[in-house]
Amino acid sequence: MSDVIVIDGCEINAWDDEVLDELVTGGVSGVHATCAVWEGPRDALRNLAAWNRRFRAPDALVELASTAADIRDAAARGRIAVLLGFQNTSPIEDDLELVEQFSTLGVRVMQLTYNIQNLVGGSCYEPSDSGLSRYGELVVGEMNRVRMLVDLSHVGERTSFDAIQVSQAPVAITHANPRSFLDNPRNKSDLLLKELAAAGGVVGCTLYPLFMAGGPAQTLDGFCAMIEQLCADIGVEHVAIGSDLTRKWSDAHLTWLRDGRWRPAADPPPVWPQWPSWFSSAADFPTLEQGLRDRGIGEQDVAAILGGNWMRLFGEVFGA
Amino acid sequence: MSDVIVIDGCEINAWDDEVLDELVTGGVSGVHATCAVWEGPRDALRNLAAWNRRFRAPDALVELASTAADIRDAAARGRIAVLLGFQNTSPIEDDLELVEQFSTLGVRVMQLTYNIQNLVGGSCYEPSDSGLSRYGELVVGEMNRVRMLVDLSHVGERTSFDAIQVSQAPVAITHANPRSFLDNPRNKSDLLLKELAAAGGVVGCTLYPLFMAGGPAQTLDGFCAMIEQLCADIGVEHVAIGSDLTRKWSDAHLTWLRDGRWRPAADPPPVWPQWPSWFSSAADFPTLEQGLRDRGIGEQDVAAILGGNWMRLFGEVFGA
Repeated sequence: MSDVIVIDGCEINAWDDEVLDELVTGGVSGVHATCAVWEGPRDALRNLAAWNRRFRAPDALVELASTAADIRDAAARGRIAVLLGFQNTSPIEDDLELVEQFSTLGVRVMQLTYNIQNLVGGSCYEPSDSGLSRYGELVVGEMNRVRMLVDLSHVGERTSFDAIQVSQAPVAITHANPRSFLDNPRNKSDLLLKELAAAGGVVGCTLYPLFMAGGPAQTLDGFCAMIEQLCADIGVEHVAIGSDLTRKWSDAHLTWLRDGRWRPAADPPPVWPQWPSWFSSAADFPTLEQGLRDRGIGEQDVAAILGGNWMRLFGEVFGA
Repeated sequence: MSDVIVIDGCEINAWDDEVLDELVTGGVSGVHATCAVWEGPRDALRNLAAWNRRFRAPDALVELASTAADIRDAAARGRIAVLLGFQNTSPIEDDLELVEQFSTLGVRVMQLTYNIQNLVGGSCYEPSDSGLSRYGELVVGEMNRVRMLVDLSHVGERTSFDAIQVSQAPVAITHANPRSFLDNPRNKSDLLLKELAAAGGVVGCTLYPLFMAGGPAQTLDGFCAMIEQLCADIGVEHVAIGSDLTRKWSDAHLTWLRDGRWRPAADPPPVWPQWPSWFSSAADFPTLEQGLRDRGIGEQDVAAILGGNWMRLFGEVFGA
């Protein structure tokens, strides 16, 4: 691996030593780790505490990062920087002030909705999206105040447009692809991606098979061609990676991740997708890097896509 | 008021501008403010957030303190330093790791039990006290690790002795009196007070009327005589003030404070006690100071009792 700073914009693993070793093998310097999907405040506290335990383990490979500088420092020490994040606003419930509390506890990223409509806005899977609620506007404002990154990955289109407009800081889509690559509710329209970019945001292209055309049969070159096209469409400085790796979860846990405490009547039971042969863990980041090079993308742009763009966004949103 | 640093070891007010002004009038530099009595993690988060709001209000009179140095700095700026505390371990439930989470959020003091037996140990009101539970031992150890002060004010005697023995740092009784002054379950035996002192701890003598002989009829001189005697018994460096002021609460709230979600069958409905004419708010700290002087207690000892001893303990327990 080159001396590029590699950042994975989203992983949601059942973290263990092997998963952490995969990050080391892949040369990943920083990862945004999901600490809540459906959890309320109580269980979110517990999930964050599990990371504290990992951070203070003897010979820990990981350390807490709150700023772009923290990621650079961790990389210099050969350790992996972890940005703690929520893929839902469920941990703050209806209590705006919990945004700051979780920020104090290290949470730097929060997705406005997960797979269902919530207090803040509409999800990408809802038949109708209300847009950002009144409470949602306050949440985005409070996130801006405490410098927490707004994530729109699972958020409905209308709510996403509203959030981009309301937010005083650039926002992210940490893990999704363009709908032009695969027409799926979790992927994003060209217009949304352009507005995100116009507001200084970054999209992390995802390797999650269900959101790639052809699923696990998609090729490395095809995925990199999609990235190349997206760079042409919205500007290379707004394009990054957010693998959405889900390493080591049990089948039982999948139902929790996907459906939480109930399943929409129309939805089939969830199954784990197969990952593409060329990307099945963070250890495959060098393969991805080579794939981008093989498209003829220049060194500087490859470095921007693999981590530089996240670092720029983190610097802007999190401050010093 | 002299240039003594005055610390109130415990107040549990319905805080408003008038209550804060009383602290200013009383020359109080630091106060340990109760942020939970029966609350679980969710509501404890919310109560702590209310303090964040006060701390960042324009022209705030109060600021968060985590160390003795913070209190000195706040005093130098003419602001009141607030140590956040819990009068129960209910905010951590059965989850040891929440100790660190609440510590990160600013909680510096935690009482092991409130008015009923809990996961950690026995309360002073229980007919039988199990002593510190196995979980309780872990909690004290974790509090030591994150430098949180153990408070025994409402804790049963046997659990208190256990905690003093198990704790690797000195502990506090932030608000109680000697049983020799008034024989009440909330007051402390001579032996316990001596063990507390031998381990480097501090007891904050309380003005709460129910725990003073004669209640509101107790005189300033009588209260100060009790303090003088306590200093003779356990050493002046272990004696301080913890008023237990309960300013501005409604009658309805009293039931919550005293009984939580149920009332022991034998207990009568609680009523607010009348406070003594010479101490009805923090504005009366100068009266208390004068009362100590009138007993012939020397300047240095008066300063130690009014705040110096808390500062020494905070320095030792919280570190730099």
